Amino acid sequence: MTRPLISLAALLALAAPSFAQEAAPAPPSPAEIVDQAPEDEWVAIPPEDLLVMTLAPAADGSERKVVIQLMPAPFSQDWVANIRTFARAGWFDDITVNRVQDNYVAQWGDANYDNPESTGEAKALPDGLIATDERNYTAPGEAIGLSTLLADSTRDLALKTGHVLSTSDETAGVIIANGLVDSYAQLSLFDRGWPLASNIGADDESEPAAVWPIHCYGMVGVGRNMSPDAGTGAELYTVIGHAPRHLDRNIALVGRVVEGIEHLSSLPRGKGQLGFYEDEAMRTPILTVRVAADLPASERPSFEYLATDGASFARYAEARANRRDPFFIVPAGGADICNIPVPVRRTGSQ
Amino acid sequence: MTRPLISLAALLALAAPSFAQEAAPAPPSPAEIVDQAPEDEWVAIPPEDLLVMTLAPAADGSERKVVIQLMPAPFSQDWVANIRTFARAGWFDDITVNRVQDNYVAQWGDANYDNPESTGEAKALPDGLIATDERNYTAPGEAIGLSTLLADSTRDLALKTGHVLSTSDETAGVIIANGLVDSYAQLSLFDRGWPLASNIGADDESEPAAVWPIHCYGMVGVGRNMSPDAGTGAELYTVIGHAPRHLDRNIALVGRVVEGIEHLSSLPRGKGQLGFYEDEAMRTPILTVRVAADLPASERPSFEYLATDGASFARYAEARANRRDPFFIVPAGGADICNIPVPVRRTGSQ
Repeated sequence: MTRPLISLAALLALAAPSFAQEAAPAPPSPAEIVDQAPEDEWVAIPPEDLLVMTLAPAADGSERKVVIQLMPAPFSQDWVANIRTFARAGWFDDITVNRVQDNYVAQWGDANYDNPESTGEAKALPDGLIATDERNYTAPGEAIGLSTLLADSTRDLALKTGHVLSTSDETAGVIIANGLVDSYAQLSLFDRGWPLASNIGADDESEPAAVWPIHCYGMVGVGRNMSPDAGTGAELYTVIGHAPRHLDRNIALVGRVVEGIEHLSSLPRGKGQLGFYEDEAMRTPILTVRVAADLPASERPSFEYLATDGASFARYAEARANRRDPFFIVPAGGADICNIPVPVRRTGSQ
Repeated sequence: MTRPLISLAALLALAAPSFAQEAAPAPPSPAEIVDQAPEDEWVAIPPEDLLVMTLAPAADGSERKVVIQLMPAPFSQDWVANIRTFARAGWFDDITVNRVQDNYVAQWGDANYDNPESTGEAKALPDGLIATDERNYTAPGEAIGLSTLLADSTRDLALKTGHVLSTSDETAGVIIANGLVDSYAQLSLFDRGWPLASNIGADDESEPAAVWPIHCYGMVGVGRNMSPDAGTGAELYTVIGHAPRHLDRNIALVGRVVEGIEHLSSLPRGKGQLGFYEDEAMRTPILTVRVAADLPASERPSFEYLATDGASFARYAEARANRRDPFFIVPAGGADICNIPVPVRRTGSQ
């Protein structure tokens, strides 16, 4: 948005001391709030929950690695277990990215699987896969203590205002931490580092309280056939456009890309139906997919996320909803949950 | 999301006659509703409002053209006039795409403009540019008849339910046509083919009723320096990720990409600050930018959009919010405005 280097020049100018600025320092940007978060608000991601996916090198020979964080309990654990099984069996090695649909998803798997036009043979599935069930696209509200998390007053305020994020820092923190009004669900909220939605508080009280992960940019889900098929985890996709939230509760979400999504989001779009490549040569080979815990220490990446129930996250979310850093004129006064990405940082072994 | 060709096979299977299907045909998908819209609900886009931007050919030699629709009155007309001036002066020819930031924007302009590190010379600006003013990031609510458009009952219903799109087709049509509850503004709505937001009905009645275009995927905006600079229109960007709605009312929006956005969204991401390319060789040259009205008839593209106040658009929006086509299990019961892209189709001269 800013002009190329004009903006850098302007920022440099702002960084120089001046009387006006000493009187009123610029409010911190969301990124600055994250940078200032104390160490104890960062939570290590278990290496068992990290997948390292190595694509074939780019045309210029540079390395392309994508790191995916798998979801923790109570979400999608049957699929997550299967994905570890696929990875540990080496089943994902030599699959390909077969579909890239603009403003939607990039999808990878065995191009020969159930493909009548394929010239190759589909891979045999590994032993030990768990049978999946579409009922597990959501988890019970109790599983994350949702009913106690949401004070009635907070929920009422959120529902009443229509926006969730107040311009008052103090109020905003509470509301953000507890729940956001959402176009796709009764409410949305952050819990244990993930963006979630829930039907709690919906008019239809007969429906049991449920909570589910949502399709924000970079989230990873499981391809499936028509219901009741719920997919094994062999076929995965990631969101590379505006959040396709209509897929929530219709597909298992299993994780998110925490590094290297640009290697998927910048791939050429497929020209076939749904963005599949018509030309097989366009498919990007995936060389290996490994669970980080299985890698030698020297190659094992490590990541942390900013605790979503901490003070810094509340400030960060409030600042995302009310940008006051120098470039901005009018703070929005709100944000949708997918425009408040949970900060994740690499801490070791690039 | 569907597996590669499994889904095509499944769709073919569904297309075959069967007793169950004759009894209850599958509800139409949003795309099918658009395909069935009567001709008189399609509105031609004036050739004066279309820009054809030709990038240098891709590495494989294939052509890359991007077509942009400029916004109609009452929105951003000073910038829109400037953009036509730049195009007609040939000023945009030989500029470059200088910045591609993942999940955010692709931005193009004169890489030498106000760039202290540049080795080249900035282009002189053409004559006849209009001075721009940030107050025109919004238009008065009266300009689109907003107060008469919104019946109180509709707005109250929208505010009360928290979702805007009911599962009842009839109600949904009304609500969609009139306004959507929004995380970033008092409401959002469609008018004359564009996604808009407004403060009308906000608690602060002292603020004059305003309406403004919003940053959905593919929208095109004007790069600027720090306020009160509002940009000339020399530097443009388009959204290639989740809607960065915090930019609404902070930048002039001037149009949207109606064809060829994949040529921008799939470009390699820049590794410098804000996604600028550190390596000048990474910049994609823009060969020419022409107003479609100025092209010979044989090269002039023509496009139409689906009228946003018509019956088909209301059905389409309702179906986007409540997917019932065969792949889906649980309709969302709502949608955010940027997940209801206004259908645009090409009607002539590829």
